[in-house]
Amino acid sequence: MKKHILIVPGDGIGQEVTAVGKKVVEKIAAKFGHEFTYDEALIGHAAIEATGDPLPEETLVKMKASDAVLFGAVGHPKYDNDPSAKVRPEQGLLKMRKELGLYANLRPIKLFDELLEASSIKPELLKGADILFFRELTGDVYFGKRERIDEGNTAYDTMIYSKYEVERIARKAFDAAMTRGKKLMSVDKANVLESSRLWREVVLEVAKDYPEVQLEHQFVDAAAMLLIKDPRKFDVVVTGNLFGDILTDEASQIAGSMGMLASASIGDSTGVYEPIHGSAHDITGKGVANPLASILSAALMLDISFGLKAESEAIIAAVDATLKAGYRTGDIADASTPKNMILGTDAMGEQILSRI
Amino acid sequence: MKKHILIVPGDGIGQEVTAVGKKVVEKIAAKFGHEFTYDEALIGHAAIEATGDPLPEETLVKMKASDAVLFGAVGHPKYDNDPSAKVRPEQGLLKMRKELGLYANLRPIKLFDELLEASSIKPELLKGADILFFRELTGDVYFGKRERIDEGNTAYDTMIYSKYEVERIARKAFDAAMTRGKKLMSVDKANVLESSRLWREVVLEVAKDYPEVQLEHQFVDAAAMLLIKDPRKFDVVVTGNLFGDILTDEASQIAGSMGMLASASIGDSTGVYEPIHGSAHDITGKGVANPLASILSAALMLDISFGLKAESEAIIAAVDATLKAGYRTGDIADASTPKNMILGTDAMGEQILSRI
Ligand SMILES: CC(C)[C@H](C(=O)O)[C@@H](O)C(=O)O
Ligand SMILES: CC(C)[C@H](C(=O)O)[C@@H](O)C(=O)O
Repeated sequence: MKKHILIVPGDGIGQEVTAVGKKVVEKIAAKFGHEFTYDEALIGHAAIEATGDPLPEETLVKMKASDAVLFGAVGHPKYDNDPSAKVRPEQGLLKMRKELGLYANLRPIKLFDELLEASSIKPELLKGADILFFRELTGDVYFGKRERIDEGNTAYDTMIYSKYEVERIARKAFDAAMTRGKKLMSVDKANVLESSRLWREVVLEVAKDYPEVQLEHQFVDAAAMLLIKDPRKFDVVVTGNLFGDILTDEASQIAGSMGMLASASIGDSTGVYEPIHGSAHDITGKGVANPLASILSAALMLDISFGLKAESEAIIAAVDATLKAGYRTGDIADASTPKNMILGTDAMGEQILSRI
Repeated sequence: MKKHILIVPGDGIGQEVTAVGKKVVEKIAAKFGHEFTYDEALIGHAAIEATGDPLPEETLVKMKASDAVLFGAVGHPKYDNDPSAKVRPEQGLLKMRKELGLYANLRPIKLFDELLEASSIKPELLKGADILFFRELTGDVYFGKRERIDEGNTAYDTMIYSKYEVERIARKAFDAAMTRGKKLMSVDKANVLESSRLWREVVLEVAKDYPEVQLEHQFVDAAAMLLIKDPRKFDVVVTGNLFGDILTDEASQIAGSMGMLASASIGDSTGVYEPIHGSAHDITGKGVANPLASILSAALMLDISFGLKAESEAIIAAVDATLKAGYRTGDIADASTPKNMILGTDAMGEQILSRI
């Protein structure tokens, strides 16, 4: 198969882990006889430094021209405490999502058996947990109008949804529920928010086309609680952009670490595959970041964008075998992990490569 | 001491647990020689049924005229799947918060040692966790303009903060931090939201008056993750209305159960004390609801609104002794709890009363 892949490492540990993710894709291509070509592009702080723009036109053109994007992370602490900064790394990320029409962000939360002890949640409550989040990614308060008013003394953001936006993500989630346990939880705050009432209205409407799916509604506060209390109660979850941001980060603790979680952003055009972790400047440059989220993002890319199921499974099997062999990065090590089995980013990558 | 207390049970288990909370206050009054008088008023679904209004004028007048309000919960499932309902129980709650100027919602998250095993989080990560949340309660997307537009096909809510609103809650949180570990975490989403950037700006400004307090900022998604990963890292937390709603429900798992968590809402006028749990219609009428959150809310009322520290501590000591004696409600029982030690709402109340 011939495919053109754009590598967009972004900022911080995004650089380090995406380099490893790319190597894994190259190994798969060699082993399965595919012809993958690669290009690279800037985004986020890295792009601001080079061009002044967090999403340069050149990057966007390259994205649209490729078959898939392997993405790292964006962000830089220098903007975080400077509320007046006009240009910010995250603007690049949000603009990319909007311009590529990436309205569905799939975040599978699955615990590798070997990591049962790495989580802060009791193993007996976790074993078998397997959740698939559908986070809406191009609407909500991320894209509504925002402004300073009242001589700068007041600020607002607009949480906004239109019916067609809810419908298309709801359909994707119901479709996925049909291929899994036929259970779907929709999360909103319909007891307070009008945008949530619209959300619930549309989900109830779409549900009529899926009579076999058992639909449940939860308020976001209750869902945040239940996720920790009883993670196995969750199967497929669909929610808005902001609630999805919060709940999936929280759910990372079910998988032991943020460093394990991959995501797929899909929609109208090129799919983007990225770890759910951020740029993590506190550990950037130390060579200790867990590359498995990027590697598993590459597996999602092969499966979802290219339909290469066997190739995708070869990666997951290599991750599983490496964990079974006892290798860990710092974030997924526990008290019983021998020091010499705790690997850095590249060494962990080598272990995976050697098992493909 | 003479005080007038308004009992507002509201809906569902609010009725059952507040009745027990009131008995505990009566016992304290008798034992410590205080003269407390009581009145009762309607709110929520109960008030809609009786008057058509979720917060009747009479209730509001009574609230303003009393020294403190012991509150239950509001909500009813019949409104949840009816996005078109114009009158809703929650409107009563929100109007009460606004009319009484209850801008600071204090939610202490503390684990009773005896409940270490009741949580889904590993005991070794929990032991000693002690968090005090300051949730802003009269601003944010709860009170911004909301509307259906575009012939009903689009809905929006407005997430909005003004500087004075952030400043007053930030000061309360910094003050509390000074009396505790001198650590404060402010939670926002300043990498995306303008209202969060204003939030952060003001918190940084107020921080100048508290040079001894170690201030940390976290994005809400990261905070939702860290709360489970490492609950002991948290001391005092200050955040907006929506993020506070989500994070404190999540944090209830640190205390073993929602049924253990009390809250105090304070501001310009009468303080309101209430469990953080909701009306829980799934268990309403069964007599199994945990009354400890209401009892501990009464303890907060005696302490914060009346300055009766010894009386407040007498309640907490009674709860502690009852748990030490092995008594549990269903929500905080674990596999090792003998059947005959699992009590219903009233029986648990009796155990507490007998220890005051
Ligand atoms: C970096 C940030 C803007 C982003 C988001 O909030 O969407 C990130 O947290 C994510 O989840 O991809
Ligand atoms: C009932 C609901 C409107 C309320 C809120 O969201 O504030 C509740 O969840 C709470 O936390 O008191």
